[in-house]
Amino acid sequence: MKAEIIAVGTELLLGQIVDTNSAYLARELAELGIDLYWVTHVGDNLDRLSEAISRGLSRSDLVILSGGLGPTEDDLTRDAIARVLGEELYIDPELEERQRAFWAARGLEMPPRNLTQAMLIPSARPLPNPVGTAPGWWVEKDGKFVVAMPGVPRELTRMWEHEVKPRLRAVAGAGIILSRTLKVIGRGESAVEEAIRPLVGSRNPTVATYAKPDGIHVRITAKAGSPEAARSLIEPVEAQVRAILGPDIYGADDETLVGVILRRLRELGWRLGLIEVLTGGLLAAALSEPADAEGAFAGGLVLAGPSELVRLGFDPETYRGAGPGNLALKLAALARQEFGAEVGLATVGDETVGDWGEPPGAAFVGLDVPGEAVYQRLVVPMSRPEVRRRAVLTAFHLLWRSLRERLQAG
Amino acid sequence: MKAEIIAVGTELLLGQIVDTNSAYLARELAELGIDLYWVTHVGDNLDRLSEAISRGLSRSDLVILSGGLGPTEDDLTRDAIARVLGEELYIDPELEERQRAFWAARGLEMPPRNLTQAMLIPSARPLPNPVGTAPGWWVEKDGKFVVAMPGVPRELTRMWEHEVKPRLRAVAGAGIILSRTLKVIGRGESAVEEAIRPLVGSRNPTVATYAKPDGIHVRITAKAGSPEAARSLIEPVEAQVRAILGPDIYGADDETLVGVILRRLRELGWRLGLIEVLTGGLLAAALSEPADAEGAFAGGLVLAGPSELVRLGFDPETYRGAGPGNLALKLAALARQEFGAEVGLATVGDETVGDWGEPPGAAFVGLDVPGEAVYQRLVVPMSRPEVRRRAVLTAFHLLWRSLRERLQAG
Repeated sequence: MKAEIIAVGTELLLGQIVDTNSAYLARELAELGIDLYWVTHVGDNLDRLSEAISRGLSRSDLVILSGGLGPTEDDLTRDAIARVLGEELYIDPELEERQRAFWAARGLEMPPRNLTQAMLIPSARPLPNPVGTAPGWWVEKDGKFVVAMPGVPRELTRMWEHEVKPRLRAVAGAGIILSRTLKVIGRGESAVEEAIRPLVGSRNPTVATYAKPDGIHVRITAKAGSPEAARSLIEPVEAQVRAILGPDIYGADDETLVGVILRRLRELGWRLGLIEVLTGGLLAAALSEPADAEGAFAGGLVLAGPSELVRLGFDPETYRGAGPGNLALKLAALARQEFGAEVGLATVGDETVGDWGEPPGAAFVGLDVPGEAVYQRLVVPMSRPEVRRRAVLTAFHLLWRSLRERLQAG
Repeated sequence: MKAEIIAVGTELLLGQIVDTNSAYLARELAELGIDLYWVTHVGDNLDRLSEAISRGLSRSDLVILSGGLGPTEDDLTRDAIARVLGEELYIDPELEERQRAFWAARGLEMPPRNLTQAMLIPSARPLPNPVGTAPGWWVEKDGKFVVAMPGVPRELTRMWEHEVKPRLRAVAGAGIILSRTLKVIGRGESAVEEAIRPLVGSRNPTVATYAKPDGIHVRITAKAGSPEAARSLIEPVEAQVRAILGPDIYGADDETLVGVILRRLRELGWRLGLIEVLTGGLLAAALSEPADAEGAFAGGLVLAGPSELVRLGFDPETYRGAGPGNLALKLAALARQEFGAEVGLATVGDETVGDWGEPPGAAFVGLDVPGEAVYQRLVVPMSRPEVRRRAVLTAFHLLWRSLRERLQAG
């Protein structure tokens, strides 16, 4: 099956945004065994957009569009598809109903223009978009497929995962593709790739590494006639990967680092409290995202900087002698107290420890659990958001490792 | 002048790399006043690459290629240009000399294949590449231009800056594109577009709306012979937009919502404290991102859920009578106390107020400032992350509006 991607939006042609959707879709198509030959960026212009779509249909079996499904006059993807296929747009009562419900639920009047998001053509089926107002389109005509998804990455990826990918898997045939993702923390991507180099060359299953915010993902993907056959291709390779990276693998597939940490806290019957100076709430925001976090995650105290620590009656100066590592430890212990928790985690950065002679980008993470108090120092000579991001990953790594050892011990 | 970009490389079509070069070139072309209508990604395939180039020459005055200039068999950009223009490749003695010098300087033998990087066609002039081995090509033929640059961003940007941009400025004639972005909060994209409908039709400057995480952006873009001329085109339109959306515009261009809020807090000499139940640290993380947040942002208390409120000695039950709005207000007041701050902001969601008969996705934001205590209710019937995201925007909107009124008042 030959596919091409058309990314729609004048902001792409003005360089105001980078097209990350196409790279994401390209990886996904490769995994489905669908050949991607062309990616085109085109502006919000009906003629050029129609030109791109009809060329796409002339040389590919599948045309995937991203963007141009919004409610404004610039959003022309629906019109262009209708024009190229020579079909009439009509307002679908069910979609209109959903649109009105969406606004009503917010106690708002639906802006008239949003009616365009309830439009279909006879050969299009709507693709639900639970995280936005624009439904996607799934079009089948004359043995060709046209898929239209919103350009907002959050909406596109969800629609791809839940609506488009399953349908494509069905039509793409060529057996099924199964993949297994092992998630690694505490090693860089190149280190992971080094370690599993011999496996990365294999054809079926393929093995690839991806650097993600929650560590390095190792994806093993097999193509086979049946799920069982695919699994039997994957299993031995997964075993090899685990033999090499074992202790650094925190989870697989949909497991998240935060999810694993919360589960371990529950298994231990422990609650976690935070004091965040450097990370300013990033740890708390991640830990509180799962609806069931409460009970394992107690809460966190965010302090904008050292002067707030002093205001709290806690003077970093008193730790000048002991050094910044001990400051992080003391804050971790304080976090336990504050929240009556068994586990305390704390972060401070150069804004607090700078006058200890620490370089810019220095950060300390402190962890306090029953019978263990440990801190880690990292130096990230980069922008503040990057320092904070690395500190979050380091904190979770430290916590994850400590909980694992605790569970193994007892 | 009409331009298009062709990014060459199978790795793009496998999603192994994201094409950031095109966004960079797009911004640069806009600044030169050159219209970019198409961006195409094509793999390392001579037929498809040639097809893309000849189509480019048929519809554009300038075709810019990135990638495919390396020494390997996959690097086909030179061959494709030669084929499309019907010219013969030859080895340029001077370029060969430079190639050999490059390797000699490193005490290495030049790999034979690197000779291909010394190749030219009669209508091509070489573009020096001091940071790599592949020279670029500047081709002028029949009034059209073809520019080929290496795909490595470091090499491409340098070649663009020093070699291509100056030449293009000469041929493209003066003319620049200037844009101004006004940022709106508290209205949906379609509502904003409705309001400024008459302006959205205009050609120069153009007016377009974009939905962003921090509200709706209205971008006014003008094309003119000089920055002054462009500004004089933008100003009257900006004035009209401000006349229509004025009170909902929080900033322009690089200003951020958090930045504006922190600045206003400083102007008032106020500090902000948070209690986050629903948003679990998202507000704190955003407010603490700027390095200079401290002083205006004091800190925040994150509580995983209602049971943690109780543990804090604060029982939501006591507010059953008063209703969830008053609970949010009480928490905002508590936030002020906790951090000895002038401004308190708090969020609770259905996990706390659900048993008040509030529907799933219900959220309350409370704000407490000297002389004003106000709450806002919202219902977001979507996933928890989406409810949290909307609650953050609502909280910032409420706070921003209150601070603005305070500044206007006094």
